[in-house]
Amino acid sequence: MMDKIVLSPSIMCADLLNLRESVRQLEQAGVDALHIDVIDARFSPSMPLGIDTISKLRSVTDLPFDIHIMAVNNDWFVAEMLAIGVQQITFHYESARHLDRLVNLIKRHGVKAGVALNPATPAENLRYALAEIDCILLMLINPGFAGDSGESQVSYAKNKVAEVRAMANKQRSDCAIQVDGRVSLDSIPELVAAGADNLVLGSTSLYQQGFSFEQNLQRLHQAVSAGLAARAAAGEKAL
Amino acid sequence: MMDKIVLSPSIMCADLLNLRESVRQLEQAGVDALHIDVIDARFSPSMPLGIDTISKLRSVTDLPFDIHIMAVNNDWFVAEMLAIGVQQITFHYESARHLDRLVNLIKRHGVKAGVALNPATPAENLRYALAEIDCILLMLINPGFAGDSGESQVSYAKNKVAEVRAMANKQRSDCAIQVDGRVSLDSIPELVAAGADNLVLGSTSLYQQGFSFEQNLQRLHQAVSAGLAARAAAGEKAL
Amino acid sequence: MMDKIVLSPSIMCADLLNLRESVRQLEQAGVDALHIDVIDARFSPSMPLGIDTISKLRSVTDLPFDIHIMAVNNDWFVAEMLAIGVQQITFHYESARHLDRLVNLIKRHGVKAGVALNPATPAENLRYALAEIDCILLMLINPGFAGDSGESQVSYAKNKVAEVRAMANKQRSDCAIQVDGRVSLDSIPELVAAGADNLVLGSTSLYQQGFSFEQNLQRLHQAVSAGLAARAAAGEKAL
Amino acid sequence: MMDKIVLSPSIMCADLLNLRESVRQLEQAGVDALHIDVIDARFSPSMPLGIDTISKLRSVTDLPFDIHIMAVNNDWFVAEMLAIGVQQITFHYESARHLDRLVNLIKRHGVKAGVALNPATPAENLRYALAEIDCILLMLINPGFAGDSGESQVSYAKNKVAEVRAMANKQRSDCAIQVDGRVSLDSIPELVAAGADNLVLGSTSLYQQGFSFEQNLQRLHQAVSAGLAARAAAGEKAL
Amino acid sequence: MMDKIVLSPSIMCADLLNLRESVRQLEQAGVDALHIDVIDARFSPSMPLGIDTISKLRSVTDLPFDIHIMAVNNDWFVAEMLAIGVQQITFHYESARHLDRLVNLIKRHGVKAGVALNPATPAENLRYALAEIDCILLMLINPGFAGDSGESQVSYAKNKVAEVRAMANKQRSDCAIQVDGRVSLDSIPELVAAGADNLVLGSTSLYQQGFSFEQNLQRLHQAVSAGLAARAAAGEKAL
Amino acid sequence: MMDKIVLSPSIMCADLLNLRESVRQLEQAGVDALHIDVIDARFSPSMPLGIDTISKLRSVTDLPFDIHIMAVNNDWFVAEMLAIGVQQITFHYESARHLDRLVNLIKRHGVKAGVALNPATPAENLRYALAEIDCILLMLINPGFAGDSGESQVSYAKNKVAEVRAMANKQRSDCAIQVDGRVSLDSIPELVAAGADNLVLGSTSLYQQGFSFEQNLQRLHQAVSAGLAARAAAGEKAL
Repeated sequence: MMDKIVLSPSIMCADLLNLRESVRQLEQAGVDALHIDVIDARFSPSMPLGIDTISKLRSVTDLPFDIHIMAVNNDWFVAEMLAIGVQQITFHYESARHLDRLVNLIKRHGVKAGVALNPATPAENLRYALAEIDCILLMLINPGFAGDSGESQVSYAKNKVAEVRAMANKQRSDCAIQVDGRVSLDSIPELVAAGADNLVLGSTSLYQQGFSFEQNLQRLHQAVSAGLAARAAAGEKAL
Repeated sequence: MMDKIVLSPSIMCADLLNLRESVRQLEQAGVDALHIDVIDARFSPSMPLGIDTISKLRSVTDLPFDIHIMAVNNDWFVAEMLAIGVQQITFHYESARHLDRLVNLIKRHGVKAGVALNPATPAENLRYALAEIDCILLMLINPGFAGDSGESQVSYAKNKVAEVRAMANKQRSDCAIQVDGRVSLDSIPELVAAGADNLVLGSTSLYQQGFSFEQNLQRLHQAVSAGLAARAAAGEKAL
Repeated sequence: MMDKIVLSPSIMCADLLNLRESVRQLEQAGVDALHIDVIDARFSPSMPLGIDTISKLRSVTDLPFDIHIMAVNNDWFVAEMLAIGVQQITFHYESARHLDRLVNLIKRHGVKAGVALNPATPAENLRYALAEIDCILLMLINPGFAGDSGESQVSYAKNKVAEVRAMANKQRSDCAIQVDGRVSLDSIPELVAAGADNLVLGSTSLYQQGFSFEQNLQRLHQAVSAGLAARAAAGEKAL
Repeated sequence: MMDKIVLSPSIMCADLLNLRESVRQLEQAGVDALHIDVIDARFSPSMPLGIDTISKLRSVTDLPFDIHIMAVNNDWFVAEMLAIGVQQITFHYESARHLDRLVNLIKRHGVKAGVALNPATPAENLRYALAEIDCILLMLINPGFAGDSGESQVSYAKNKVAEVRAMANKQRSDCAIQVDGRVSLDSIPELVAAGADNLVLGSTSLYQQGFSFEQNLQRLHQAVSAGLAARAAAGEKAL
Repeated sequence: MMDKIVLSPSIMCADLLNLRESVRQLEQAGVDALHIDVIDARFSPSMPLGIDTISKLRSVTDLPFDIHIMAVNNDWFVAEMLAIGVQQITFHYESARHLDRLVNLIKRHGVKAGVALNPATPAENLRYALAEIDCILLMLINPGFAGDSGESQVSYAKNKVAEVRAMANKQRSDCAIQVDGRVSLDSIPELVAAGADNLVLGSTSLYQQGFSFEQNLQRLHQAVSAGLAARAAAGEKAL
Repeated sequence: MMDKIVLSPSIMCADLLNLRESVRQLEQAGVDALHIDVIDARFSPSMPLGIDTISKLRSVTDLPFDIHIMAVNNDWFVAEMLAIGVQQITFHYESARHLDRLVNLIKRHGVKAGVALNPATPAENLRYALAEIDCILLMLINPGFAGDSGESQVSYAKNKVAEVRAMANKQRSDCAIQVDGRVSLDSIPELVAAGADNLVLGSTSLYQQGFSFEQNLQRLHQAVSAGLAARAAAGEKAL
C-alpha cells in the first residue's frame, strides 16, 4: 500500500472535441496519469474512444498513459498499446485465458501490468498472479454499461477493497489497488481508508458538474487527505 | 433458509403436445412454480423448448414462471423472458461475463434473479454476488446432456448443498438454494436436510413412471416432510 | 417444375398449447407436409420451437416433416433432425460452409435436401449445388425477425421466383422451389405462375384471421388453382 | 448516376485532437458530408475512432454524417448510429447475414442505406439488394489495414466502378457509387468518368501533404470537373 | 494454361512415421512439389498434420512446399507458413473476409498465392481476384471429411474445371488450376483435358494400393500424357 | 501421492521425421508413457502435431498415450482421442464449460481423466472435480507460446505444487499431480519433493542438448531419486 494516492482522470470525461486543450489542463492540474478506456464493443457494449485518437494524444503529452482494456481479444489490444508507448496496461481477468503470459509480456516491455476484475469476480482468482502484477483494478460498476439507467456503485465496494488489500498484504505484495466506477468525492475517503491507492476520476469527482475544474480539484485533494488520515488512524488502532 | 420448500416441476416432463391441459393439472396440484428450461443448443447440446411456446403458456396460467437459462448469449434470452413476463430468471455463472449487471438488470424489472452453477463449479465464485441474488441453482447433473447414457447425480451433491448453505449463512444471505438434476423421492430428504429449499421436479419425482400423478404428489410431500424433519433435528442438535 | 403444388403449413401458426389436436386438423385437411421452423437464436434472433416438441410430434403423425433450419451450427441440427426421422431438411446457404457435403449427408439418409436463400442472396450461388439438391427455399421476408414492425414481402419476390425457375430449367434440374414469408392468398397465384411449387402456409393464408380453417382451406385451393391456370396459360403462350 | 459529385472527406484525416475546429473548416469548405469510419477491431484490425467521439461531433455540426461501418456485429453498430442521428449508414456485405433486413431497418428510420464491398467481392452479390439500397461503396483498398506497407489501390478499381455502374443502369437503379481508398487527385478523373459519384477524401486528395487545405480543395474541384467532362464526352460518344 | 502438368503429391499419404525417408522417395521420383494440408479442426473436422512437423520437413528437402490451408483464421496460418519458408500458399474463399489483402500479402513475400473453392462454390466469386492470384484450387470432394463413408468425387468435377478454365481464358489470366480430391488415374485424363494443370496426388493415384510406388508413378505419367493429348486434340478441333 | 514417479516424455522433442525410430528408443528407455500435446491453434497459438500422426503412432507401440489437449472445442478432440485409443486424456479447465461431464465421459471409456491448469489458475476451481479426476496437470509455463523469447518457469511453481498436494491430501484424493513446462533436471528434485508424481520430459531433461539420450536418462533417474529422498525426509520430519 502506498502513501501517495495516484490520481488518474478518465479522458472520457474531458472535452473529446478538443483533447489537446483538455490534456493541457490536466497537466497543469498535476494529475499522475491519464486513464484511458479501450472497449471493443464486444466485451462490453461500448466503444468510447478510438486507437488513432490515443495515438495522436501520445504525441502531445508526457503524462503517463494508464490504459484499461475491456476487450475479448486482449492480445491484439495489448500489442497496439505497446506500440503506442504507454506506461500501464490493465486487462480483464474475465477474458484472459493466458493471464500469466499476458502479464509477463507487458512487463517485458517495461510497462506496468494490471488485471481488472468485474464487480462480482472474487480476487482469489488472482492469488498466483499477484506475485507478478503491478495493479489490481477493481470495477465498482459494471464496465461499459453507461446506458443502464440508475446504475450505482456496487454495495460491496468498500468491503471488496479491504479484502483485496488484506489478501495482498498476506502475500507481501506491493500491488496497487485501483478503483473505478462512480469513485466520488463522497466515497473517496472510505475507499482510500479501505486500501485503495489509485483513483480513476470522472463525472463524480474531478468532472462533477456545478463546480469549476479548480474547485473540483481542490475538493478532490481534501477527500484524498481525509481518506489517508482515516487510513492512518485505522493503522494505529490496529497496532 | 426457508421453512417452506418450493416445488417447481419441470415443464419438460409434462405432455408437450397438450400443454394447456398439463398446466391445468399442475395448478390443481398446488405447485409453487413452473420450472422452464431454456437452452440454446450452444451452451449445451439441447434445445428442448421454444420461446413461442413459453409465450403462449404465459397466456393460460398465473403460475409463477421459474426460468432456467442455459445459454451463451444471456443478454438476449433474459430480455426475451422479461418481455414475456416471468417471476424468476436464473442464468449460468459459466457464461456470465457481467454477472452483477445481469442480476441487477433482472431485479430492476421486479423479477427474482438466480445464478446457476454447473456441478464442478465452486460456489465461492458467487461470494460477492451473494449479496444481490435471490437464488443459487445447483445443477446436480450436467445440464443439457440428457443423451449421455448412464448419467447419474454427482457424488458430491449433498456436500455441495450443505457447503453452499453454510456459505450463505455466514454472509447472512437469505438466498434460496434450488437443486436440479435427478432430484428423486429418495434423495429429497437428504437434500432438504442439507439445506435445499427449492426443488426442480422431473421424471424421478413428480413424473415418476409406474405411479399416478396423484400418488407421486403424495409421495413427494412425504419426502419433503422427511427432509424438513431431518433438518429440524439437525438444527436442534447443533444448538 | 411440378404440376402438383405442395402445401406445407407452418406448425408455428397452429395451437402450440395443443399440438396433438392441431396436427389432427391438418391431417384431415389433406396437407402435404408440416413445415417446421428450427431457429437457434443466433442465425436469427428467434427460437420459436424446441426439438423435444418436434420429437414428440413425430410420435403422433405420419405427415411428412419439412424442416427449415435457420442456424449457425447446421451439422448439429441436421443430425438431430435425422435422428427424429424427418422427410425433408432445408438449411441456409448463408451459414453453410460445406454445402455440398451437408446436402449429400442428408440424402444418404434417404431424406430430401433443400437449401434456403435469404431475400437478397442470389441463387447463382447454388449453380453447382443445383445438380444435387431437391428443393430451393426462397425466403420472401427476412427469417426470424417477426418482431420487426411493418415488415412486408420483398419487392422482388415474383421476379426472383421466375429467375430461379429459369435457372433450374436451363440446368434441366427438377429441383422444387419453395416460397416462405407472407405467402398470402393474394400473392399465391402470381408466385405459382412464376414457378413456385411448394408453399409455406401461415397467417396470411391457411391461418388467416376472420375466416374458419375450412374457409381458408377452400380459398387456398382456389388461389393455387388460379396460379396453375396462369402458369399453364403462360406456358402455352411461350410455345 | 448523378451530375453532382458528392464530396465526403474522411474525419480520420482531420485533426483528431481538435475536431471542433476541424469540422468548422470542412463546413466552410462546403463539403457535402463527413465520412466517418467505424471499425470494430474484428472485421478488420483497426479501431480508429470511438462512438462517444462521433456522438459529441453530432452536437456541433449540421453536416450530414456518412457512416462506414466495418464490423462483425452490424446490428449493434447500426443501432448506435441511428441513436446518434446520422444521414447515411453503410455496412459491409461480407459480414451481413440478413442484408435485406438491415437495409430496410435503416431506411425505416429515414436514413440512407449503403452496402460496402471489399475489393475482391463481386457486385453481382447485390443484384436483388440493388432494388432497395441508396449507395454501393466500393473499397479500392482493403479496409482497416493501414499498417500494411506498400498497399496501393487495386488494379481493377476503374473497371469495377464501370461494371457496377453498368449493372445499376441495367436494373434502372439510381443507387449512388461511392469509392474509398487512395482516391487521389490523379485517379479521381477516371473514377468519376467510370461512374463514381461519391468520393471519400483523405490523405491523397483533400488532406494531401505539401499543399494548404485551400489549395487541395481547389485541385479537388478541378479533378472532379475533369472527371465529369470525361464522363460527358464518353456519354456523347456512346450515343 | 500450362503445357506442363504439375504433380503435387499429398504428404498425408506418405509414411507419417518416417517422413525423412518418404520425402527422399518423392524427390527421387521427380515430383514438382509437396502438397501439404493444413487443417485447423474448425474449418473442417480434421487436423491431420502439425506445424512443427512441416517446419522439420522444411529442413530436409528443397522440394517446393505447396500449402493448402483449410482454416478459419487464415491470417495466423499464412504467417506461420511464410515463416517456415514455403513456395505456394492456398487458402479458402469460404473463410477469407479480406481475400485481396491476403493474396497480396502472400505475394509481397515472393510466394505464390492460391485460392481454394469448396465443391459447390462458384468460381465467379473470384472474378476480380483472378487478376492477382497464381492458382485456383478446385476441391472435388469436401475437404476434411475423410470420415464420411462413401464419399466420392462430385458429379460436376469435369464441368467445373472446364468452366473455370474458360473464365480464366476470357480474362486472359494465366492462373493455374489445381484439382484435389480423388484425382485418380482414371479421372486424370479428362481433368487434364478439361484444363487442370496441377494435380494433387493421393491414394487414388501415386499411392494407390496394390501397386509399387514405381508402378504408380509410371501409370500416373501415362494418365497425364493421355490428358495432354486429349487437350491438344480438343484445341485443334476448336481452331 | 504415489511412491513411483511417472516419466512421460513429450513426443514433440523426439525426431518428428522418424517417429517410428523415436518411439522404439523411448520403449527401450523404459519410460511410462508418451506425452502428446494436442493444440488447436486457437486455445494457444500453436498446432504442433496432427491427429493423423498420433493415429499412426498408435499402431506401432503399446506405450500408454498421455494426451494433453489444449483446445477450445474439447468435445471434438476428446472424441478423436477416444477413437484412437489412448490411456489418459487431460483437457484444460480454462476452456471446459461442462468439466464434470467431460471427466465422466472419458472415464466411462476406461480412460484416465486429467484436468490441466494454466499457471495463474488456482486449483481451488477443481475442489469438487477432485473427487472424480485422476490427474491434475499443472502448467509451469504458458502452454503453446514457445515463440515467446525468454519465457521461464513461473516463480510460484514449487509453491503451487505443494499447495495442490495439500488440497488433494485434505480431500483424501489420490489424484496424481503432473507438472509440465521446463521441468528440468535441476528443478525435478524440488518439484518431486513438493508433491509432483508425474513429470513431462522435454528439452530441459530427457532431451537436453550436449548429452546423449542415455546420459540424460541416467541423470533423470538421479534427479527423481533425489526428489523422492527429499520428499521422504520431509515426510519423516512432519511426523
